[in-house]
Amino acid sequence: MIDPQRYPRLSRIQFPADLRRFPQEELRPIADELRAYLIEQVAKVGGHFGAGLGVIELTVALHWLFDTPVDRLVWDVGHQTYPHKILTGRRDAIHTVKQKGGVAPFPKREESEYDTFGVGHSSTSISAALGMAIALQRAGDERKVVAVIGDGAMTAGMAFEALAHAGGMGEEPGGLEPNLLVILNDNQMSISENVGGVTRMLGRLTGSRTLNALREGGKKLLGDKHRGPAKFVRRWEEHWKGMFVPSTFFEELGFHYTGPIDGHDIDALVGTLKTLKGLKGPQLLHIITTKGKGYELAEGDQIGYHAVGPFDPAQGVVGKPGAKKLTYTDVFGDWLCDMAAADPKLMGITPAMREGSGLVRFSREYPERYFDVAIAEQHAVTLAAGMACEGAKPVCAIYSTFLQRGYDQLVHDVAIQNLDVLFAIDRGGVVGPDGATHAGNLDLSYLRCVPNMVVMAPADEDECRRMLSTGHRYPGPAAVRYPRGGGPGVPVQPTLETLPIGKAQLRREGACLALLAFGAIVPAAERVGEELGLTVVNMRFVKPLDRALILELARRHEGFVTLEDNVVAGGAGSGVAELLAAEGVTLPILHLGLPDAFQQHASREELLAEAGLDVAGIRAAVLRRWPALADDALTRSGQPTPLSAAR
Amino acid sequence: MIDPQRYPRLSRIQFPADLRRFPQEELRPIADELRAYLIEQVAKVGGHFGAGLGVIELTVALHWLFDTPVDRLVWDVGHQTYPHKILTGRRDAIHTVKQKGGVAPFPKREESEYDTFGVGHSSTSISAALGMAIALQRAGDERKVVAVIGDGAMTAGMAFEALAHAGGMGEEPGGLEPNLLVILNDNQMSISENVGGVTRMLGRLTGSRTLNALREGGKKLLGDKHRGPAKFVRRWEEHWKGMFVPSTFFEELGFHYTGPIDGHDIDALVGTLKTLKGLKGPQLLHIITTKGKGYELAEGDQIGYHAVGPFDPAQGVVGKPGAKKLTYTDVFGDWLCDMAAADPKLMGITPAMREGSGLVRFSREYPERYFDVAIAEQHAVTLAAGMACEGAKPVCAIYSTFLQRGYDQLVHDVAIQNLDVLFAIDRGGVVGPDGATHAGNLDLSYLRCVPNMVVMAPADEDECRRMLSTGHRYPGPAAVRYPRGGGPGVPVQPTLETLPIGKAQLRREGACLALLAFGAIVPAAERVGEELGLTVVNMRFVKPLDRALILELARRHEGFVTLEDNVVAGGAGSGVAELLAAEGVTLPILHLGLPDAFQQHASREELLAEAGLDVAGIRAAVLRRWPALADDALTRSGQPTPLSAAR
Repeated sequence: MIDPQRYPRLSRIQFPADLRRFPQEELRPIADELRAYLIEQVAKVGGHFGAGLGVIELTVALHWLFDTPVDRLVWDVGHQTYPHKILTGRRDAIHTVKQKGGVAPFPKREESEYDTFGVGHSSTSISAALGMAIALQRAGDERKVVAVIGDGAMTAGMAFEALAHAGGMGEEPGGLEPNLLVILNDNQMSISENVGGVTRMLGRLTGSRTLNALREGGKKLLGDKHRGPAKFVRRWEEHWKGMFVPSTFFEELGFHYTGPIDGHDIDALVGTLKTLKGLKGPQLLHIITTKGKGYELAEGDQIGYHAVGPFDPAQGVVGKPGAKKLTYTDVFGDWLCDMAAADPKLMGITPAMREGSGLVRFSREYPERYFDVAIAEQHAVTLAAGMACEGAKPVCAIYSTFLQRGYDQLVHDVAIQNLDVLFAIDRGGVVGPDGATHAGNLDLSYLRCVPNMVVMAPADEDECRRMLSTGHRYPGPAAVRYPRGGGPGVPVQPTLETLPIGKAQLRREGACLALLAFGAIVPAAERVGEELGLTVVNMRFVKPLDRALILELARRHEGFVTLEDNVVAGGAGSGVAELLAAEGVTLPILHLGLPDAFQQHASREELLAEAGLDVAGIRAAVLRRWPALADDALTRSGQPTPLSAAR
Repeated sequence: MIDPQRYPRLSRIQFPADLRRFPQEELRPIADELRAYLIEQVAKVGGHFGAGLGVIELTVALHWLFDTPVDRLVWDVGHQTYPHKILTGRRDAIHTVKQKGGVAPFPKREESEYDTFGVGHSSTSISAALGMAIALQRAGDERKVVAVIGDGAMTAGMAFEALAHAGGMGEEPGGLEPNLLVILNDNQMSISENVGGVTRMLGRLTGSRTLNALREGGKKLLGDKHRGPAKFVRRWEEHWKGMFVPSTFFEELGFHYTGPIDGHDIDALVGTLKTLKGLKGPQLLHIITTKGKGYELAEGDQIGYHAVGPFDPAQGVVGKPGAKKLTYTDVFGDWLCDMAAADPKLMGITPAMREGSGLVRFSREYPERYFDVAIAEQHAVTLAAGMACEGAKPVCAIYSTFLQRGYDQLVHDVAIQNLDVLFAIDRGGVVGPDGATHAGNLDLSYLRCVPNMVVMAPADEDECRRMLSTGHRYPGPAAVRYPRGGGPGVPVQPTLETLPIGKAQLRREGACLALLAFGAIVPAAERVGEELGLTVVNMRFVKPLDRALILELARRHEGFVTLEDNVVAGGAGSGVAELLAAEGVTLPILHLGLPDAFQQHASREELLAEAGLDVAGIRAAVLRRWPALADDALTRSGQPTPLSAAR
């Protein structure tokens, strides 16, 4: 329970209605309590940290001024919504964030009526809020709609599409201007530092507008001694002199622009928002904030404090003693540098995920071949296609679910032209605490149907490295898809050797059934195979499949079990079934994979167990289908024994 | 062969090297000949028309001034590349455009070294050209890279992502500015008129810059009497007064901006391009052109002349006498208006495909519920999600391959939240003359793996209407996927009745085998079923499948044949196999569908036959697997007969 001694105001706030009973003068101390409580709670259990600290004042101001949940508040990405959750009924549960059955890490419609739009991927808020504003307006409903979007999220094409649509609506014949307020939360960061033309544009805009902001009471802006504002001031000094911008980027698209104002000055925020609340048409309010605001260590290391594990607030996050387990992300990062040394044509591309995708070292060692394109997955993929046209060897490092943003580009620009692009797909399969929005459960299905693609899934860390080399050397489109976190711990050899395309690895010769396992699930399949005396294959290639081996195994087994950490629908196992059907082979088959449902947030292990993809679950599923196996598993000699239960 | 009398210059030009032997004074008459030849040739066979006429002068100027194919010329979309193809080795073959074995309708790398980047979908050119420029620059290669993009294509998010990346590169520490020239071909049109904030922005930009343009020799700009320029002048008069734009949208993103200039003034073009060719860094040249330029009827009806069938140039395109066959697009368009009349919550959304998707009547009758969001598929889908959150009933009308652009939004914003959005997916399955970029061969696979989706495919026109009503009434995400053109001609009843979700339709009771057909292929399956005495099912639902019927049929048949106009990999037929496997049923199965390869352009009928999906192909495939059927097909009474050949 919250301590009423330490939090005399916050302890009296369960919902925004409680907040709105306080006078405006109390908002500053409420914000301070909220910040302290957030630090205390996240330090206990870990979670997204810096983004929430940056919007404390904004969150308080919005819920105080707008009639939430009647008025609609749409948060982009959702990293920053812990303060929002604390003020909207989840104060006492926030310490369960990201845990199974606990508070979701992002806004979620099922969790609260205050979470108007579920999110996890960036840059959707303006589209969603515009859709809401239009639907409400057409129904004669006057409630307000507010979207809060970061400058990082603003770099994505879909945010631009939404701005352009909203801004242009009033100009159409008979067009109604939507009543929509977009708040641009400009902290010059996404998860990493922002890059590209949007950052440049905002920098110039901020520079040219700063004098107004300062006059209007934003003096605190210069008072802070930490990194964010200091950087901001440098930009300001650099740009403002001699600049005169009568029409901003946003105004050109049709928005009414206000700002920039200091997003930590709660009175300035409330004052400005009060004015904007009364205006019609598309409004954009530009606020300047500092990620990690109010916790000095987080302000000083904004990337490190984006998301944290549990830590002591007095001490900050400290590196854990002892060797960290090697993750697949690390394997990729090391391979990328080694291959870059061997092949001057290699280019590395990331859509704003330098840290998450493991490109930090590469970006330092090969800056001229490192391309952070901002949150721009569509562009990332077609940029790679263009590079490949000129003989470069691009490696596009991207999370599984974010590649959904570049799906058309993968099909239309890379696969149709059979271009030499390697996709290094991190966070494939079960991801865990980040929930359904980040779950890479669909990639094998949506990749396998695309002609010309080679699709690989490694069983261990060393194989991942070999697959990356294989995909890099293969002269067409290829994808290596690996899970979040670590693998079974197989030592990684410093080789750049490749694997033969489309060849699986027979791991264990057994009898009766063959377990055909794809990717991360191979070790569990192997355990079950050993227990039950079954054949086990590490399939390695989702596409092309090892046709010869599959047909050979079909001849000497009574059934197949396919295993994968992808949905069964259209997954790798279905590919095996399609191959058998095409060859006129009829064989009992059991597909084990993820369910046809979006999984909730929980740990990776919990979700795998829930889906029956841990050792116990696999064993149970196999025995459910072939109960006779249980009787003779321990005595089986390797000779096929007819299974009475097999059809 | 080209007539040297009518085309004294063009008849001497096979390749750009020939063009470059002419002095600059000859470029105007060459452009005139090229325009006349294009009109003559397209009138003969049909094809994309207006866009090519609009870039005649630009095409001549670029190939004359740049050293193509050493210098890289990237055309966006590709509608406008017939003049380019004529000047680059395909003059005498252009009359074969879109036909099987003939010239491709869009740039295609396999076809010519002058086609540097294959295309068909819009807005990829800046990304591709930037990738080329970077790869060349990093390899120390000095050749030039030019992208030509329309103002319509500029509305898509990925174009913005690419501009922002290119424009910001020079600002990064150690960043190299790419040498890239982007030519914005501003004709205020995509296929329809453009809408939205980008159009607004370009209108203001053009307005404020026009004085310069006029002084610099663009007097012809006002001389023309046709619609495009007249409209342009109106905008100009409206906007230029009192405006002062020291920094344009493009400059804010980091490009050096030049323009606008008259894109039909070949000397102005050559002069400006000469200057720009010598400059470093990202350059943007804004030219104003008229779609259909030089053919009065096309200038007057830019939408009607975007793409044409064969016509008499003296007379223009005339409506064919007699009743036009009803297309699925028509069925959708009529249904949309009828359902809108019945349900005030219905909203219609199109990403810039009002004509192609059949929303013309709806846009006139329900303007306040009609949303053309420009070429912005990502936004279109999430806008629909936002509307659905507030109780509206959005219908998102979109081509199958363009939905690939909104795939993440479909998963992340619609399906995860189980929102009530109906996708009306036109051009599903085999499309034909537009080639691989427009082939809707993957949609059943990439949709079927997504949890919560209901996916339907109609066997005929009337069923399409009922499915649209079904999807509209269903309170979650649903898709109806129908092919290009017409169906079997089943009269459409003016009902808004729905179908039971997940129920198939037994079309014919037969023996031995059951043909389970999805969508447009049902009539062909029915023919084969009749010939061979087999059971035929119109499956209707790709997801959820009719489990009860499938299991019942499995009990009383010796095998299944699944049929669909989608790739076999992960398609609807695989769903049937997965269901059988999940139920522990082992049955011989044959999946008929599209191949695991990108099909070339040809007619829809030719491609279906090539894939073995016409009646003859289906019959042959079934008999190949079950040869015994041939013997007793005519005598079969409906009683199951064991098939010796069945495994």
